[in-house]
Amino acid sequence: MEDITRGGQFLVKETKCESVFTPEDFNEEQIMMRDSVKEFVDKELWAHKDKFEKKDYAYTEQCMRNAGELGFLGVAVPEAYGGLGMGFVNTALVCDYISGATGSFSTAFGAHTGIGTMPITLYGTEEQKQKYVPKLASGEWFGSYCLTEPGAGSDANSGKTKAVLSADGTHYLISGQKMWISNAGFCNIMIVFARIEDDKNITGFIVEYDRDNLNGISLGEEEHKLGIRASSTRQVFFNETKVPVENMLAGRGEGFKIAMNALNVGRIKLAAACLEAQRRTISGAVKYANERMQFNTPISSFGAIQSKLAEMATNCFVDESAVYRAAGDIQNRIEAREADGNSHQEAELKGVEEYAIECSILKVAVSEDVQNCTDEGIQIFGGMGFSEDTPMESAWRDARIARIYEGTNEINRMLSVGMLVKKAMKGHVDLLGPAMAVAEELMGIPSFDVPDYTELLAEEKEMIGKLKKAFLMVAGAAVQKFGPDLESHQQLLMAASDMLIEIYMAESAILRTEKMAKKLGADKVAEQLAMSQLYLYNAVDVVTQKGKEGIVSFAEGDEQRMMLMGLRRYTKYVNMPNVVKLREQIAAKVIAENNYCF
Amino acid sequence: MEDITRGGQFLVKETKCESVFTPEDFNEEQIMMRDSVKEFVDKELWAHKDKFEKKDYAYTEQCMRNAGELGFLGVAVPEAYGGLGMGFVNTALVCDYISGATGSFSTAFGAHTGIGTMPITLYGTEEQKQKYVPKLASGEWFGSYCLTEPGAGSDANSGKTKAVLSADGTHYLISGQKMWISNAGFCNIMIVFARIEDDKNITGFIVEYDRDNLNGISLGEEEHKLGIRASSTRQVFFNETKVPVENMLAGRGEGFKIAMNALNVGRIKLAAACLEAQRRTISGAVKYANERMQFNTPISSFGAIQSKLAEMATNCFVDESAVYRAAGDIQNRIEAREADGNSHQEAELKGVEEYAIECSILKVAVSEDVQNCTDEGIQIFGGMGFSEDTPMESAWRDARIARIYEGTNEINRMLSVGMLVKKAMKGHVDLLGPAMAVAEELMGIPSFDVPDYTELLAEEKEMIGKLKKAFLMVAGAAVQKFGPDLESHQQLLMAASDMLIEIYMAESAILRTEKMAKKLGADKVAEQLAMSQLYLYNAVDVVTQKGKEGIVSFAEGDEQRMMLMGLRRYTKYVNMPNVVKLREQIAAKVIAENNYCF
Repeated sequence: MEDITRGGQFLVKETKCESVFTPEDFNEEQIMMRDSVKEFVDKELWAHKDKFEKKDYAYTEQCMRNAGELGFLGVAVPEAYGGLGMGFVNTALVCDYISGATGSFSTAFGAHTGIGTMPITLYGTEEQKQKYVPKLASGEWFGSYCLTEPGAGSDANSGKTKAVLSADGTHYLISGQKMWISNAGFCNIMIVFARIEDDKNITGFIVEYDRDNLNGISLGEEEHKLGIRASSTRQVFFNETKVPVENMLAGRGEGFKIAMNALNVGRIKLAAACLEAQRRTISGAVKYANERMQFNTPISSFGAIQSKLAEMATNCFVDESAVYRAAGDIQNRIEAREADGNSHQEAELKGVEEYAIECSILKVAVSEDVQNCTDEGIQIFGGMGFSEDTPMESAWRDARIARIYEGTNEINRMLSVGMLVKKAMKGHVDLLGPAMAVAEELMGIPSFDVPDYTELLAEEKEMIGKLKKAFLMVAGAAVQKFGPDLESHQQLLMAASDMLIEIYMAESAILRTEKMAKKLGADKVAEQLAMSQLYLYNAVDVVTQKGKEGIVSFAEGDEQRMMLMGLRRYTKYVNMPNVVKLREQIAAKVIAENNYCF
Repeated sequence: MEDITRGGQFLVKETKCESVFTPEDFNEEQIMMRDSVKEFVDKELWAHKDKFEKKDYAYTEQCMRNAGELGFLGVAVPEAYGGLGMGFVNTALVCDYISGATGSFSTAFGAHTGIGTMPITLYGTEEQKQKYVPKLASGEWFGSYCLTEPGAGSDANSGKTKAVLSADGTHYLISGQKMWISNAGFCNIMIVFARIEDDKNITGFIVEYDRDNLNGISLGEEEHKLGIRASSTRQVFFNETKVPVENMLAGRGEGFKIAMNALNVGRIKLAAACLEAQRRTISGAVKYANERMQFNTPISSFGAIQSKLAEMATNCFVDESAVYRAAGDIQNRIEAREADGNSHQEAELKGVEEYAIECSILKVAVSEDVQNCTDEGIQIFGGMGFSEDTPMESAWRDARIARIYEGTNEINRMLSVGMLVKKAMKGHVDLLGPAMAVAEELMGIPSFDVPDYTELLAEEKEMIGKLKKAFLMVAGAAVQKFGPDLESHQQLLMAASDMLIEIYMAESAILRTEKMAKKLGADKVAEQLAMSQLYLYNAVDVVTQKGKEGIVSFAEGDEQRMMLMGLRRYTKYVNMPNVVKLREQIAAKVIAENNYCF
């Protein structure tokens, strides 16, 4: 197990491309699964997009039921509880391909299979799992997740919902108000978080919701939202709702831990769920650009349009690379833990927790990319993009929620760096050593040797190494300067997080491309190479900007000068790439294929 | 007149802060006008926001009629035609403050007073003006603008709508299909562009639309759109619509010129119309952030939120500075032309045309800022931001159209640089001389004198000068390299345009702040100084990035190295500002005032 790169360790340990899972590594089973999901999406979701936009909640429920019949709800569920017992990569794959047609279904699917079901599979007792999971895996029942309250959003542990033990000790009485509850309108069970007495931390419960026996549960009206219009979102009110004591999840006061861990998995799944929307948007946009004639030529012949298509395709390619890399890592770690004798449940729990940093990184990066992708989709469609008659406008609206739920992107940015610092403090990842090595290197004279870049991606890989040094330099100095008070310097954390995110994403694309090139030959992956280079170039700009901002915020005089010089050294290209040409090359491929084709 | 900075000349001529109009220069009449517009907006628009979101087109029309009664529709119309005959600054001011509550009304207002009325006031004959303008100025009648067709969007001159002269020569018969026609549902006249025979250019007509005598005109259904929901947007079909020959606007084949000039004015008005939405969004966001408690503190105490508020306020301040600077320049030029003996009509036409570059710059910059502002508004509201119950979601949707209409931002980006190059070629602005001076300077040894920055904003003003050199270096080399073929290098044009935009915007804020500081003392404008510095810092990053991208796209070897070194020289701070602190300072003011307060 020690061979597997640990969470956050990508920063300080070289990752070999052979050890990374990529979409090109899908096996036959996975390809079949992907194709059957795509068929389901095309027939039942994409073909009926208007129903979702018209708030046809019943149709969403119907599609969820059909997805259950096809087995898609049980991918991640062990066979013992009626699921398919597939690995984490398959889970990510289904989340990915089932999500491209409409955010309404995607949200219902994610809320049910992720945060609605997983807390039971991860934390449930054997009895709880036997009782609930098979129904959830088959789509006979649906789940929802009641954490957020009017006064408790990002500060999830501050909820006011109470759970009071009955006099006879057989059940709890839950009272309180929850909001933004996805699937509330058609769910059968709710994972509810409530506080017992004056506990520091909240506690999780499985609460059945039976429309013939309301048990003190009532729902607010459907919320009217910017996007994901046919995702049922309601407030849920509990008024002395009776919950048997045996329906407590894990132990008393362990709800916050459950909530946070459920969110970790939720985050990488959400990232996966933002991939197919990008692919469909890119394909739709290039088809339109190839057909739409202005100035006697298809608008795809214009550099301004090509530039957009290239950036959209690049971000999507990079996002795929990073999501499946992390999914593969998580799967490997789960399997290794099982081989070490952990139960599947324990192994899965710890496996995902291990990569919480990567989950936050992915959540932020991919949710922002899908927003930008759909935004450019609208712009390529011009006036038509603003019309409800084209798929761009709903895609843009639907994408907006991904930057808010499962922890806002601001919270996830701060978490990514915060968790990394904690891991370093605990000695789980040695950042201190490498950070000190960087500080020492900076005192020395830089090498003026002419580097040898004959090997494929050599300069790019070296650049990734340098960007990591830039991050270690800035983050290391910040930790030294502020210690535990660093968490109150949010602007600095956000800047560091942006550096961290770009490094992980850029490296993932390079590793994927390198792996492909080794297998197929470099000439077969010319556009993948171009995309890796283009993304890296943009990443270098972000690292430069955010690094500069961070350094100047806490260092002065000679220290500042030294660090700015270091930043410059660690972001300097020997051969500056011509990104205009790279974009032309990438766009030419997408335009010729009339599709996202990577 | 020669003293007035000409359009595009800001790049090569130093602008004195005394010569720049700023919002602080509003006179009593303007302040009264602003306050009465604000009162109207609060009472009739903001208080009834839900009606606009529910597509109450009749309410939009009603509000337009009320605006007419209050004189707001006639601000720009000469008194001789029933208007208030106010200057261009007042026109911008009314566009600005009337537009913040809802994009639906803002669009109706802009379409009517701008492109619906102005082509007549700018190009109409005395008879046409007498007949139509008083009714349009009072709100008895409403105007619309029929240019776009299904096959003619950005390529506006390619429309297929035909105008055929009747056998007796008394009228034209217009046939064709127009789309995305704002105000179509309630207008009384349409400015219609159609082609006569096989003319190279289209021709403009004033077409009356009388519901009791349809005259071959029919309307499509209301379009269902992403935003501006209660703005009436329909297709308009003309089937041998009879238009008297005397209703031709300007001469045969002059329609394209009319269309383009109407759009110039439309662009700066649109930019003005994106200001108040930012102010209201910022004020709404800070009020929410001051009230919303998480982790036992208002979320406005968090750096992540403060950073957003600071950037939002800064962009709005900069946008105001640039819009009113350009409006003042236009007004001055109109007045100077009138003093030189031009008719008001001629003076206004040429005055606006002169600043077409600035109009494009403003349209792009301010439309993107209002999008970002509302986007951050949603993010600050968190989950609530995604709900139709808060004003953020409609503001975000409404903002989206501003990047599309009046020429997409891509078209306007390319126009801004394209027009500048044309002006240089024609000798209207001497870019060649300064560009050559820069090239020469680059060959020399940079000065190592320690500069004297004791004067207020001295380093910032020097930096603006350097950024201009960076632009001249890149654009000059590009023109030399590609000549007239430059226009086919759209990626390069877009990069150059981003540089140009940032320079104009940053300089405008600095000039405004300098003017305020001279009047009030530097200590009274601490936050304005901080905002100018923060914006400039971001502008330097953009110029660096886009300059680099441009240079590497066309220069190689020694030339590339030399230009990259020049770019570095022209973007280098002596004292790097601490933008984290600047943001804290700006946010502190907004948070304390609980309002956008600049």
